[in-house]
Amino acid sequence: MLISCVAYQNGRKIADIPGGDISEYVSRPDCFVWVALFEPSSEELDEMAEEFGLHELAVDDARHGHQRPKIEEYGNSLFAVLHTIEREKDADGGEFLNTGEVDIFVGPNYVLTVRHRTHLGFSAVRARTEREPELLKNGSGYVFYAVMDNVVDRYFPVIDALETELEAIEEQIFERNAARSNIESLYALKQKLMVLKHAVDPLMEATGRLYGGRVPQICAGMNEYFRDVYDHLHRIHTSIEGIREMLTTAIQVNLGMISLGESEVTKKLAAWAAMIAVPTMVAGIYGMNFEHMPELKWWFGYPLSLGAMLVADAYLYYRFKKSKWL
Amino acid sequence: MLISCVAYQNGRKIADIPGGDISEYVSRPDCFVWVALFEPSSEELDEMAEEFGLHELAVDDARHGHQRPKIEEYGNSLFAVLHTIEREKDADGGEFLNTGEVDIFVGPNYVLTVRHRTHLGFSAVRARTEREPELLKNGSGYVFYAVMDNVVDRYFPVIDALETELEAIEEQIFERNAARSNIESLYALKQKLMVLKHAVDPLMEATGRLYGGRVPQICAGMNEYFRDVYDHLHRIHTSIEGIREMLTTAIQVNLGMISLGESEVTKKLAAWAAMIAVPTMVAGIYGMNFEHMPELKWWFGYPLSLGAMLVADAYLYYRFKKSKWL
Amino acid sequence: MLISCVAYQNGRKIADIPGGDISEYVSRPDCFVWVALFEPSSEELDEMAEEFGLHELAVDDARHGHQRPKIEEYGNSLFAVLHTIEREKDADGGEFLNTGEVDIFVGPNYVLTVRHRTHLGFSAVRARTEREPELLKNGSGYVFYAVMDNVVDRYFPVIDALETELEAIEEQIFERNAARSNIESLYALKQKLMVLKHAVDPLMEATGRLYGGRVPQICAGMNEYFRDVYDHLHRIHTSIEGIREMLTTAIQVNLGMISLGESEVTKKLAAWAAMIAVPTMVAGIYGMNFEHMPELKWWFGYPLSLGAMLVADAYLYYRFKKSKWL
Amino acid sequence: MLISCVAYQNGRKIADIPGGDISEYVSRPDCFVWVALFEPSSEELDEMAEEFGLHELAVDDARHGHQRPKIEEYGNSLFAVLHTIEREKDADGGEFLNTGEVDIFVGPNYVLTVRHRTHLGFSAVRARTEREPELLKNGSGYVFYAVMDNVVDRYFPVIDALETELEAIEEQIFERNAARSNIESLYALKQKLMVLKHAVDPLMEATGRLYGGRVPQICAGMNEYFRDVYDHLHRIHTSIEGIREMLTTAIQVNLGMISLGESEVTKKLAAWAAMIAVPTMVAGIYGMNFEHMPELKWWFGYPLSLGAMLVADAYLYYRFKKSKWL
Amino acid sequence: MLISCVAYQNGRKIADIPGGDISEYVSRPDCFVWVALFEPSSEELDEMAEEFGLHELAVDDARHGHQRPKIEEYGNSLFAVLHTIEREKDADGGEFLNTGEVDIFVGPNYVLTVRHRTHLGFSAVRARTEREPELLKNGSGYVFYAVMDNVVDRYFPVIDALETELEAIEEQIFERNAARSNIESLYALKQKLMVLKHAVDPLMEATGRLYGGRVPQICAGMNEYFRDVYDHLHRIHTSIEGIREMLTTAIQVNLGMISLGESEVTKKLAAWAAMIAVPTMVAGIYGMNFEHMPELKWWFGYPLSLGAMLVADAYLYYRFKKSKWL
Repeated sequence: MLISCVAYQNGRKIADIPGGDISEYVSRPDCFVWVALFEPSSEELDEMAEEFGLHELAVDDARHGHQRPKIEEYGNSLFAVLHTIEREKDADGGEFLNTGEVDIFVGPNYVLTVRHRTHLGFSAVRARTEREPELLKNGSGYVFYAVMDNVVDRYFPVIDALETELEAIEEQIFERNAARSNIESLYALKQKLMVLKHAVDPLMEATGRLYGGRVPQICAGMNEYFRDVYDHLHRIHTSIEGIREMLTTAIQVNLGMISLGESEVTKKLAAWAAMIAVPTMVAGIYGMNFEHMPELKWWFGYPLSLGAMLVADAYLYYRFKKSKWL
Repeated sequence: MLISCVAYQNGRKIADIPGGDISEYVSRPDCFVWVALFEPSSEELDEMAEEFGLHELAVDDARHGHQRPKIEEYGNSLFAVLHTIEREKDADGGEFLNTGEVDIFVGPNYVLTVRHRTHLGFSAVRARTEREPELLKNGSGYVFYAVMDNVVDRYFPVIDALETELEAIEEQIFERNAARSNIESLYALKQKLMVLKHAVDPLMEATGRLYGGRVPQICAGMNEYFRDVYDHLHRIHTSIEGIREMLTTAIQVNLGMISLGESEVTKKLAAWAAMIAVPTMVAGIYGMNFEHMPELKWWFGYPLSLGAMLVADAYLYYRFKKSKWL
Repeated sequence: MLISCVAYQNGRKIADIPGGDISEYVSRPDCFVWVALFEPSSEELDEMAEEFGLHELAVDDARHGHQRPKIEEYGNSLFAVLHTIEREKDADGGEFLNTGEVDIFVGPNYVLTVRHRTHLGFSAVRARTEREPELLKNGSGYVFYAVMDNVVDRYFPVIDALETELEAIEEQIFERNAARSNIESLYALKQKLMVLKHAVDPLMEATGRLYGGRVPQICAGMNEYFRDVYDHLHRIHTSIEGIREMLTTAIQVNLGMISLGESEVTKKLAAWAAMIAVPTMVAGIYGMNFEHMPELKWWFGYPLSLGAMLVADAYLYYRFKKSKWL
Repeated sequence: MLISCVAYQNGRKIADIPGGDISEYVSRPDCFVWVALFEPSSEELDEMAEEFGLHELAVDDARHGHQRPKIEEYGNSLFAVLHTIEREKDADGGEFLNTGEVDIFVGPNYVLTVRHRTHLGFSAVRARTEREPELLKNGSGYVFYAVMDNVVDRYFPVIDALETELEAIEEQIFERNAARSNIESLYALKQKLMVLKHAVDPLMEATGRLYGGRVPQICAGMNEYFRDVYDHLHRIHTSIEGIREMLTTAIQVNLGMISLGESEVTKKLAAWAAMIAVPTMVAGIYGMNFEHMPELKWWFGYPLSLGAMLVADAYLYYRFKKSKWL
Repeated sequence: MLISCVAYQNGRKIADIPGGDISEYVSRPDCFVWVALFEPSSEELDEMAEEFGLHELAVDDARHGHQRPKIEEYGNSLFAVLHTIEREKDADGGEFLNTGEVDIFVGPNYVLTVRHRTHLGFSAVRARTEREPELLKNGSGYVFYAVMDNVVDRYFPVIDALETELEAIEEQIFERNAARSNIESLYALKQKLMVLKHAVDPLMEATGRLYGGRVPQICAGMNEYFRDVYDHLHRIHTSIEGIREMLTTAIQVNLGMISLGESEVTKKLAAWAAMIAVPTMVAGIYGMNFEHMPELKWWFGYPLSLGAMLVADAYLYYRFKKSKWL
């Protein structure tokens, strides 16, 4: 589905143009066209491929979607795949991370963005770039930067949410009886973390090649900007690694808490068992049928035996309390 | 066993040729021959080695099979070993991964493919290359690419199956009483994953040298194509690493679930033990033979004691229910 | 908030200057200005940005704070982010690590330091640099070094405190009944360690580019000094890694101690259970109502049975003591 | 002990020579001498060192043995240390891996091999090289290759044996009651694996420098051959890593099986305890001495109570069977 | 404290000289002075710093001690920090590793060694260097090598002792009832290993830059010697890594043994509990007070019931023995 198609010249928007006029604008010097598609049909893609002379392999990737994040050079054009991550609610009200995809084709005089499985569009990016004509003069490379920056900035609330989730788990990790829910939360957090990691790590690696040494022609002169994107990705990467390591530790600690919990149950069980078994034993003794058991004839024998049971249990209770078994 | 032997010129098949005519076609300029063997005898290999001037060490590798995946240069020719992975049923109906091997010798004017222990042939590849004469003009290098692409594409359903398996395990990892089957499934999945990893990782590393910097003469001009294969391998590699990490976490979580399960059994056991022990103790007390036990003479002594037992157990039951021991 | 604003020439302080005169001093050759801000308003930053010609992206980073440590070149100026780590008490009297941030802009003729969320200022640094006019002749680069050195030196007491904490845990890791507090301490230590690690590791990496090969112009001629800072960071890094590895081992050992503790409880429980159950069984036997039980009529039957119970328990006690179950 | 001393020229053996004539043959152009020693005395080594002009540090290494595998250049000669691994039976009939050492000194006109603590000699290597005069014309470098190839080829049966061992353990890892023997086998396998790893990994690294970029003069022109050795070492390395990873997983799984086993014992114990405790409680109730217990007077009271006990136990048995506790 | 101060020329000692004459000898060509200090006062260091023109930062490091091992270039001189590791007994007779420090300043015409917290001096090194005048002609670089070699050689008995300790633990790791002492030994071994690792790893890394590519002027021409030191360090490093990996495995195995031990205790406990509970139940049944219990009147009722109890227990004992619960 064609979302928009705009021509820019000298850092300013010159016109919303119909799809058919693209080739005309593309051929003008200092002019570039930005086309935005959303889940395009195979035909739409083919049309654009012809219009802009896109490489067959890149178009195939955009057609099928489900690529890993990457930035590839095809001659003097670039093909980039970014993942968008959106926090969404599933049917049960639980949160999950929805992975969308943005494919970007950038040439000297065009930018083609293709969105898959994501709600958020790029109207904000478009508005921003049009507010900064000085920077937009850098041409299609600046639009490429702005789109990347936008996608990457949207990772921050996600990683913040994951850090908050970890903190919530950490707060109750030493709670008794929370082991089961903790372990489930830890596993769910790990799954989300892996989703984010798969979006961020390959992109960071690829972005590292857009500044510093030899950079693609399209990104030339924008070193600081792409380094800034890289830096943001690196920050998220560091946070992911930090959460990952704390998760591993938390899972081990959780295992320890489970064992500790069992140990405490065993102690409690043992203590109460003893406090029931001792009177039972005493009762058993006075239930024996020997003829010559003088205690049985004492009129205070019964209360005495009950008293002995109580004293024994009180003593046991005191001992168990003292050694924290109860 | 000789499967086929075809000569190509200018991107078009010119003839199915008998083994004996190979040398004639090989000597023509712009012409190359593609020979496909299946589990060849030692003599067949020797014959081909002589025909194409293959290096002794490479032929030895193809003869013995069971090599690790690799791509080696011998002068201006290449020798590649790829693993094919096929999902098959064993006698018990369980699924296992069958590893076959494809050895490829590529020279400027020949391609020799040797298959071992695999059902799937390359007729689809042959058909594809013949449908794309423009690309086939690149010569033997394009055939080499097409074969690799075909083998690598067949890894995708395998990794998808493993991801599905992981998801199936994840769905029941927090189920009670599933610990034993989960741990068996996790171990089996790990074994399959290692099979795939051993096929993919060395090949990815080797493919990385077929584009970018200095590339073998045969692959020249096909940068984007080999990078595409590399990219596919990298995608599978990333998936393998992701599954691997989740597997490790899942095994730890499973251990936690086992401990939790035991802890819950212990609690249940303790609760029921208490509910049997208390009436036993009471009964023991009224089984004592003291002469002076007034309760024994009350006509409502017996129902009263039974009632006391019931009340005690009801109270215990309520308490245990409340603290989730039952 | 503007803390101070001082002009230096030839290694000597020449004047405390008002904010408005900065541009005048900056334009003098061999003269540089050091401005220190604390949690500046957005306007203050904008003003400085204009005064010194700072890059928009760097100013944005300083405005928002919460950056990861880094050192970036913008043309012939540098932008550095350092984390300060301070040990503070929380409301419960527990210790936590408070992370502050210092942003440093360094150009040939200015140094701008911006502190966030940290109590400790740089008056000590200022005093030190003014005591060493020979070194201060190196200009703004030396001030940059002195600030870094000061921030990094403050990490040492933190890592020492963490090592002391680890030793304290190690001393009681094999104590019985300390498992719960140990595991909590280990987790808390890990959390603090990660805070320090996130401050140190990226900075170490960045500092490694300030000496040796091509270095930024501002740091030229001060190789040994920046290598010294790097070396300090590397020392802390090594200590962190050491603690991290021992922590992992300690957590595993703790898990073992928990299991061992449970095993010992089980043994104790079993021993006492046996010592109660045996007399109960004997008593049960003599509580049977058979008519023909000769022992019941012996006048010494009762004391004999009690004696038998005692002997059995004494024997059991001896056996359990010997095998260390008790 | 001198094993053999042979002179070669133009790829052919020309004579078995006595130790005293070495210097004469060494001085001839196109001629080289291969001396094989077995656990030589210090004097024998000194003699050879003088004859061939070996470097003092290399001779020291050969004298003391117990070096790690390595390949070092001393001027235009090479010094290599290889480990031989032999599977041997110990006194109890158990298998262990015996590590021997082969030190090789290679110069343009000599090869000196020194064996320590290993039974297997190099007569097969000698025979092979003499069968291939075309290759032997490459001189001492080819002998060096042939010896390395021989030593490395002997690692394959070892790694195969370890893989077989792992499979044997995997087959019974989910068996009940095999946990103790499994854990012992896993640990023993790990120990053997480390022995092999210490032989293979440093050698692989060193061999990687004998082909490709700048290679020692002696190995020049034999790129494919040393790459083949490297490839074999890499294959073993990959297998070792694979076993290592499966071992780690298997140890974790084993831990899970132990916990599961305990959990099952606990359940069984609980079930039988219940089936004994319930009749005991019932019996206790009818053992009470209340005067007014109507059931006691019923003539069918006793069989009824026995029946009640049986029914209760039958019901419990059915329930426990159903929930797999029994 | 000044230990010794000696001047060398042309590979030979020319005189023990007083501290005041150093500058005279240092100025002679081909002459160098070796000064050895032990825990010098700050003044002694300052004096030497002036005499030899040492860099302030290096002197600061030597003054404070507690540096990590490193080798740094300051112009055409070197500053090295080595750790000495000595096995010592603590008050309880336990062994611990005492870390000392050796700081070495090397310039073209001087060597200054500073020892901290270590008993062992360098008289053996001095004697060795004086025995090898040919090598000592290399000047201060050779002394530097000899000191490093000496310090590194002293690591070997330490790593051997740690390996012996590991073997001792491995021998009893599968012993029953040794879990607690094993886990303590494993942790203590890990602590010692980390001490050694922190001494060896940074030094190995630094030594790797003293041979091969561009080397400091002072080490020129001694490639083989520094490579030999590197090789020794690498050997120790490999051993450390080996022990580390086996330790990790051993700790896991130990955890398994603890769980197994507990499982066995539980089984034993269950078996004995059953053998006590069954007679108790039978006795309870014949302790019931039903009027119509024919067995009670049989004159052989009592011995029969006792016999039944014995038979039941004998059967249970046989069953438990068979299934290895007892």
